[in-house]
Amino acid sequence: MIGIFDSGVGGMTVARSIEQLLPTYPLLYLGDIAHSPYGPKSAQTIIDCAINNTRFLISKGAKLIVIACNSAASVATDSLRQQFQIPIIEVILPAIEEAARTTKNGRIGLIGTSATIRSTSYETALTEINQNIKIFTKACPLLVPLVEEGWHNKRETKMILKRYLHSLKNNQLDTLILGCTHYPLLKHLIGPRIGKKVSLVDSSETTAKYLKHYLHQNPHLKATEPHTPEQNRYYITDYNDTAQKVANRIFNRHIDLLLTRNICKS
Amino acid sequence: MIGIFDSGVGGMTVARSIEQLLPTYPLLYLGDIAHSPYGPKSAQTIIDCAINNTRFLISKGAKLIVIACNSAASVATDSLRQQFQIPIIEVILPAIEEAARTTKNGRIGLIGTSATIRSTSYETALTEINQNIKIFTKACPLLVPLVEEGWHNKRETKMILKRYLHSLKNNQLDTLILGCTHYPLLKHLIGPRIGKKVSLVDSSETTAKYLKHYLHQNPHLKATEPHTPEQNRYYITDYNDTAQKVANRIFNRHIDLLLTRNICKS
Repeated sequence: MIGIFDSGVGGMTVARSIEQLLPTYPLLYLGDIAHSPYGPKSAQTIIDCAINNTRFLISKGAKLIVIACNSAASVATDSLRQQFQIPIIEVILPAIEEAARTTKNGRIGLIGTSATIRSTSYETALTEINQNIKIFTKACPLLVPLVEEGWHNKRETKMILKRYLHSLKNNQLDTLILGCTHYPLLKHLIGPRIGKKVSLVDSSETTAKYLKHYLHQNPHLKATEPHTPEQNRYYITDYNDTAQKVANRIFNRHIDLLLTRNICKS
Repeated sequence: MIGIFDSGVGGMTVARSIEQLLPTYPLLYLGDIAHSPYGPKSAQTIIDCAINNTRFLISKGAKLIVIACNSAASVATDSLRQQFQIPIIEVILPAIEEAARTTKNGRIGLIGTSATIRSTSYETALTEINQNIKIFTKACPLLVPLVEEGWHNKRETKMILKRYLHSLKNNQLDTLILGCTHYPLLKHLIGPRIGKKVSLVDSSETTAKYLKHYLHQNPHLKATEPHTPEQNRYYITDYNDTAQKVANRIFNRHIDLLLTRNICKS
């Protein structure tokens, strides 16, 4: 069973891509809405949450974890790999590998939350792959609240995107990584604003492909019983109407959100 | 000692007003940034957080609690009063009393987070004071992220405010309650957009006045030792640069933010 977590429902873009590529694998999703958003929080708080999320997924039967949140992937991957013995897949390496394959001029852009950009995790991952590629970054903290408000086509969202992308546009990028699992929901606005010649790398799609490849190389993790996507389970640590709407929009069907609370009693 | 809590640093607008009106009372502030923002969260999650915050403040010596967060005041006041034996002051009653005194035509507006507006807590409080006053509400979920991003004067913030206030403007309001402790930081934009004839009720100022009156009537709570505002302590459950900037802006001096973590280890 594949366990996937995110700070909220944005990571469901990753779950949806995995569901499409690997429909016979059982998925278990956890959206930590009680602590959402992770983007503005400190590394230590995100690590604490990521450990709790992983424990929960393992307790429900997960044999492999996908960190479907760039903020958590940026700061908590090493801690999770130290603490847990099962495979931990995250969204950064697949995206950076895809971007390195895609770029022709060696100039890549990255947009993400404050936690992701501050961590310089993409720069670190890139150095290990190709030291000749330059990366230009921009933190875009308002995009997650705008998506969660459902303002996918409002004029203000377009203006804010234009402002965020403005400083990146002067760098002759030919590739832009959408470094937050909420951003695929704004792809239709980002593409025209960064320029048609810039290829967008969607970390939800690249992570699903990476996972498919990983499972192909690790056949002992193969699903043993028949399974359909409708049997996948989606847990959240807090409920709100917006989460339900975003979840339904991502999957294009009604998603039953199961509540599991995780605020500690002091 | 007066204990004050909020989901983040927005409630410091209340602490600042209290500090100005009651400079000789020791204040202890807790901003629960690890769970911030409360606005989009469910009542049960906010109640769990409010109980933890109150326990922390009492453990540090608080003899009276101020809920400096409209979302928490809206959904958690009753639970806190049931669970704790010390006085619990909150931001809603002072604001609604002030609005009822201010209005001449009996038509009041209210802006706040989703949790505050959904709770109908202001309507309930108003019914107990004056049943002839009509209240018109609008949830404005993007204003807190905009303030926390420091976009106090950006064009996009003005446009978003205009959009939010548009539906309220047709109701011939003469009074508007700023029903979120972040909103005083946008007062300069809200005033011109709702109209110069509309009086703004700032719940941070009204709460400080209410508390001063309450302490006058309860002299046993009077501070016994000499005290200056510089001795007040400000705790947060997670640290980020924006919190530091907003805190300094609110108090117009450097605020030492003390970290106390509260993510439970599952």
